[in-house]
Amino acid sequence: MPDLPSSVHVREVGPRDGFQNEPETIATADKIRLIDLLVRTGVKRIEVTSFVRPDVLPQLADNTEVLAGIDVPAGVSRSVLIPNERGLDNALAVADLFEECGVFLSGSETHNRKNVNRSIAESLAGLQKVIPRAREAGKQVEAVIATSFGCPYEGDVPRDRVLDLAVALRDAGAQELGFGDTTGMANPRQVREFFVAARERLGDDVEITAHFHNTRGQGLANALAALEAGCTSFESSFGELGGCPVPKGATGNIASEDLVSMLHEMGVDTGIDLAKLLEASRAVAEVLGRPLGSHTLVAGPVDWHR
Amino acid sequence: MPDLPSSVHVREVGPRDGFQNEPETIATADKIRLIDLLVRTGVKRIEVTSFVRPDVLPQLADNTEVLAGIDVPAGVSRSVLIPNERGLDNALAVADLFEECGVFLSGSETHNRKNVNRSIAESLAGLQKVIPRAREAGKQVEAVIATSFGCPYEGDVPRDRVLDLAVALRDAGAQELGFGDTTGMANPRQVREFFVAARERLGDDVEITAHFHNTRGQGLANALAALEAGCTSFESSFGELGGCPVPKGATGNIASEDLVSMLHEMGVDTGIDLAKLLEASRAVAEVLGRPLGSHTLVAGPVDWHR
Repeated sequence: MPDLPSSVHVREVGPRDGFQNEPETIATADKIRLIDLLVRTGVKRIEVTSFVRPDVLPQLADNTEVLAGIDVPAGVSRSVLIPNERGLDNALAVADLFEECGVFLSGSETHNRKNVNRSIAESLAGLQKVIPRAREAGKQVEAVIATSFGCPYEGDVPRDRVLDLAVALRDAGAQELGFGDTTGMANPRQVREFFVAARERLGDDVEITAHFHNTRGQGLANALAALEAGCTSFESSFGELGGCPVPKGATGNIASEDLVSMLHEMGVDTGIDLAKLLEASRAVAEVLGRPLGSHTLVAGPVDWHR
Repeated sequence: MPDLPSSVHVREVGPRDGFQNEPETIATADKIRLIDLLVRTGVKRIEVTSFVRPDVLPQLADNTEVLAGIDVPAGVSRSVLIPNERGLDNALAVADLFEECGVFLSGSETHNRKNVNRSIAESLAGLQKVIPRAREAGKQVEAVIATSFGCPYEGDVPRDRVLDLAVALRDAGAQELGFGDTTGMANPRQVREFFVAARERLGDDVEITAHFHNTRGQGLANALAALEAGCTSFESSFGELGGCPVPKGATGNIASEDLVSMLHEMGVDTGIDLAKLLEASRAVAEVLGRPLGSHTLVAGPVDWHR
């Protein structure tokens, strides 16, 4: 087996990527309680909310209330999703409540247009204004490229197109590039080759982050392939929340607790207390009142006996 | 990425490992119809039923009726699970209805005793009689070692103990050795090291088969690790049926359709038509009347666009 790193970064994205995909808006007080549980697991990065317009994304209309209400220990980096300059303006009005901005576009023209009603070129031009402004405000910036491994409308997405976009976003100032398998079309062979090529194209000065979905059950296999290819930064969602309306009924992001369980069992540290993470996942399952996709939440951790 | 094989063997075990774990016994006619759908997917190996005593395993009491009723194309190898000499006697009474025998014991003393009320040594002594008799009857024999990667009662299971048992079973005449992660405790690092060591200990003349469960969501990651370590034979269950009563509520074997999807997307052939396999999985979901753990069954195949 290729040498595995001794530790990796995990960003918990459930409060944004998960909560925004719930058909019923979660009460602000519940969001705050759940985020407070999450940040006490030891996780050092958490995506808290989004500044997408509330008429577009009513589930996260309480963004500033949530940011103001959570109790985050020192050393935990709070990130918010920024769709455009107006979203950045709104976020910077409460600039002391977060450390990181996430920005995004799609590697697929059709997906980008369906998602934000712009061409990729228009989205990129917008981000080339947003990213420098976020940097000037002292924020860390992660630029995420959705459908990096395949598009439900177009099929294959050329790797070179995705990496060209990544280079442009890096050159605009993004310190972290995230690659999203938005509808779970990636396979481990593709992932391994992708992350090797991404590091070659992007150089050593940016962080490269893997964001997988478990749509076809391959989420952790893809995470393993990325890890073997040298990736040391992952995004996941407690309870396997989140996902994408396409394909219908599909499950969400990889479950944080399943990812953390696998990594810890392989001797790769995350700084996260799995038992506390499972508490947070149990709590969100109670709030949502339905079974979640997470496996470790049902089965319990492997390491009961140690 | 390590060189991947161009093709692998997949044995469908749902009709035995899956059906025996269902709380409600499936009607014989439904079993026959589902197996007939499965063998038309192109799969070349299928575990049809078991000759465990009907008072112990009433779900599979119709073993001979199922074997007699199914319509299996030439070239498909039917296997039956054999618990002991008496089970072998009963199976050999209909010897023309199957080609392979599966026999089993556990790598964990406690699990073996809870499963078959014998010590490992007693089980091994029994198999040392069963295997040669099955071979003399012209049958191919797979010997499976359950809890090869960890035991829910004892915790870690020493790899050397498992491989010592595998050598003894090979020496008794088994042509195929299967290693089962019965309660989903394996991790990819362990799996990779295990399959490399297994090949070294067992030599090149036996087939080595991986049997993973998706208990903690790591099933396909473990399959990937085994594949990378040179394993070219896998067992899986349509719909993600099966599993084990421990831990309570846990999901089953890795889903055949999720495994096949991942392998095909990586360019590893299985000879199985994924669309036909999904038809079989839809059919069993209808018979059981509940959602199954399979992901590809919900999301559909990746390759719609090709």
